[in-house]
Amino acid sequence: MSTIEITTQVAVVGGGPSGLTMAYLLRQAGIDVEVVENRSRPYTVDRVRAGVLEQSAVELLTKAGLGERLHTEGQKHDGIYLQFDGEKHRVPFADLINRSVWVYGQQEVMKDLLVAHDKQGFSAHYECDNVALHNLLTDAPSVTYTQNGQDVRITARFIIGADGFHGISRPSIPESEITHHERVYPFGWLGILADVEPSTDELIYAIHDDGFAMHSMRSNTVSRLYLQVDPEDDIANWSDERIWEALQTRLGHPGFTLKEGPITEKSITPMRSWVSSPMRYGNLFLVGDSAHIVPPTGAKGLNSAFGDIAVLTPSLLDFFTTGNEKGIDAYSKDSLDRIWRTQNFSMYMTNMLHRFYSDNPAQDDFDYRSQLGQLRTVVNSRHGMAFLAENYTGIVW
Amino acid sequence: MSTIEITTQVAVVGGGPSGLTMAYLLRQAGIDVEVVENRSRPYTVDRVRAGVLEQSAVELLTKAGLGERLHTEGQKHDGIYLQFDGEKHRVPFADLINRSVWVYGQQEVMKDLLVAHDKQGFSAHYECDNVALHNLLTDAPSVTYTQNGQDVRITARFIIGADGFHGISRPSIPESEITHHERVYPFGWLGILADVEPSTDELIYAIHDDGFAMHSMRSNTVSRLYLQVDPEDDIANWSDERIWEALQTRLGHPGFTLKEGPITEKSITPMRSWVSSPMRYGNLFLVGDSAHIVPPTGAKGLNSAFGDIAVLTPSLLDFFTTGNEKGIDAYSKDSLDRIWRTQNFSMYMTNMLHRFYSDNPAQDDFDYRSQLGQLRTVVNSRHGMAFLAENYTGIVW
Repeated sequence: MSTIEITTQVAVVGGGPSGLTMAYLLRQAGIDVEVVENRSRPYTVDRVRAGVLEQSAVELLTKAGLGERLHTEGQKHDGIYLQFDGEKHRVPFADLINRSVWVYGQQEVMKDLLVAHDKQGFSAHYECDNVALHNLLTDAPSVTYTQNGQDVRITARFIIGADGFHGISRPSIPESEITHHERVYPFGWLGILADVEPSTDELIYAIHDDGFAMHSMRSNTVSRLYLQVDPEDDIANWSDERIWEALQTRLGHPGFTLKEGPITEKSITPMRSWVSSPMRYGNLFLVGDSAHIVPPTGAKGLNSAFGDIAVLTPSLLDFFTTGNEKGIDAYSKDSLDRIWRTQNFSMYMTNMLHRFYSDNPAQDDFDYRSQLGQLRTVVNSRHGMAFLAENYTGIVW
Repeated sequence: MSTIEITTQVAVVGGGPSGLTMAYLLRQAGIDVEVVENRSRPYTVDRVRAGVLEQSAVELLTKAGLGERLHTEGQKHDGIYLQFDGEKHRVPFADLINRSVWVYGQQEVMKDLLVAHDKQGFSAHYECDNVALHNLLTDAPSVTYTQNGQDVRITARFIIGADGFHGISRPSIPESEITHHERVYPFGWLGILADVEPSTDELIYAIHDDGFAMHSMRSNTVSRLYLQVDPEDDIANWSDERIWEALQTRLGHPGFTLKEGPITEKSITPMRSWVSSPMRYGNLFLVGDSAHIVPPTGAKGLNSAFGDIAVLTPSLLDFFTTGNEKGIDAYSKDSLDRIWRTQNFSMYMTNMLHRFYSDNPAQDDFDYRSQLGQLRTVVNSRHGMAFLAENYTGIVW
């Protein structure tokens, strides 16, 4: 059986939110795009990931015509709560800087994207095995894969690597041509979804003697909650009862009642900061998690990907329309400048809100008290809160 | 030879700026005070220490009548420069938050204090050996020492421990009653004084691939400059030529010329964050460096001491006037709340502006790029710069 040959303008590797958004925007502008995904379509929708969209991401989706359900079913949040040392303070984003975030799960973003793709008469190629990239330094790079035993080659002008941290795009760049920057944290997040009305109107970020806890949500009937745990811990050690007990302790605050309900999903995720540089190799562009990972504390994972897309899409369109390469040539540097700012904010939120248990008790306690001092300084300063708000609601692209 | 017995209301241990300021303020209000210092009077004046007074400290000194020369000979600075990655940005304190700092060396503060003490007809007891504290849990605590072979005992209602990090006050508190919090940094500062006109109108804080450098000043003819170095390094390894070469490299910037001149003082100081808690034991109150040390990056050392003094002095006066113990009872907690904020700011400035050379190159580079991202975010945000300005010019007591 011979190889099926497909020719297109842009081949996108990865059918998650980054890949589908890029593909949708490019097709909207009349560019031919093919998307290759190694998982099944339901898998890409159902996996539980990010839950908060920053304002710039919402503006991008809205402008692209993808915001209808987001604006009716998503929850606009005008602030978050910081809780520490018996105090609970609101950081009022909208009052401070007239910007907001939206609680709208990645699963919902994916549903909207698939409806939009269907309307475009377009579908990604799903369940593609043995995906590989070729000829990246030429003007005719290609993606090969096998689907139902059939070999396929897609040849394009550009390839977009939107296949995440574990994808094949980044490793397709020779190690000598790319540098990886990494910070690993000595803790992970135990995250749950529970069928219970959220006990808070806005997200609560809490640091407690026992560690970080967070109360987020997905809807009026689904709560999302997190606990700082040992990254090596086994989820089997955490009965539902133990999880609720820890959440009640760490989120406990006078006048606050944490409602409990059936836990429908639970898992432990390690935390990592990661940046690969550059984000371009020949005619391969890395987008989103394939090039950078943040710890989730600043809610920047998916939003960082949208930042990449906001820069890369018009640059590609400019190239296809006018032949101008200025935008695509600047993509990596401009994106990395923004990504390092986002990385620092994610690290700042993570460092401020987690307990760093050190072997040295004097240093351990120093860190904790210094963090409490930092939180107190932030909530006592309008500028401090506004600076946090600017970063949380997202750098304006 | 029998012991000389002195009775007073407040015995201050330490004749540096903290001790002398406290003593001066208390005497001004009619309280009897004795000051005990183990060094000579010239030594306490001549040692090179802090050089920047924050606005709250200046207000305290001015209000006490100690600001005359400070306002004529000190330099009011309305901002600082942050230099990184080939960029140089001014943080305009006065424009942002209408506050400033003053460049006025500790040596000058000491001269003013001694003139003021002389006018009060008062002198500290200098060159006191074997200083020891007694009966701290009673209402008649005492300080004993030997001066020119003569034993002396000063009995007071309160003792102020203002004798610095290496003094005897803090170690006079039983270890079971005090907790020490410490963070040690993997670098020190090589500091020089040079007889040369400063090459900048305001302080420059620079992070360079080779490490931190800073351009400060003492007057129009004396420059103060610093280099990040290995804390174990020997000053003998640093010829004047090597120092200037490193300063030229790290402070180098298009359009900037660093003027060189004779180096009159050079030394290497390790960097440490330290807090001892509580700051009171019975009728002993710790003030300034005896209770807390900051790395010098935020210029908070002497200023933190003035913060303690601003809280403790009125509390003591209130007690002596009305018997009200509320103020002195709150001193330790209130001061520590402020100190932990100051500690965090000093650590923030230190972490943002120094190179952390790690054994792990990926993490090392991650840190550096994240720091550059942080600096870029700060200088791109009015709120970010204002927040830095609020902390640099000092928490309003």
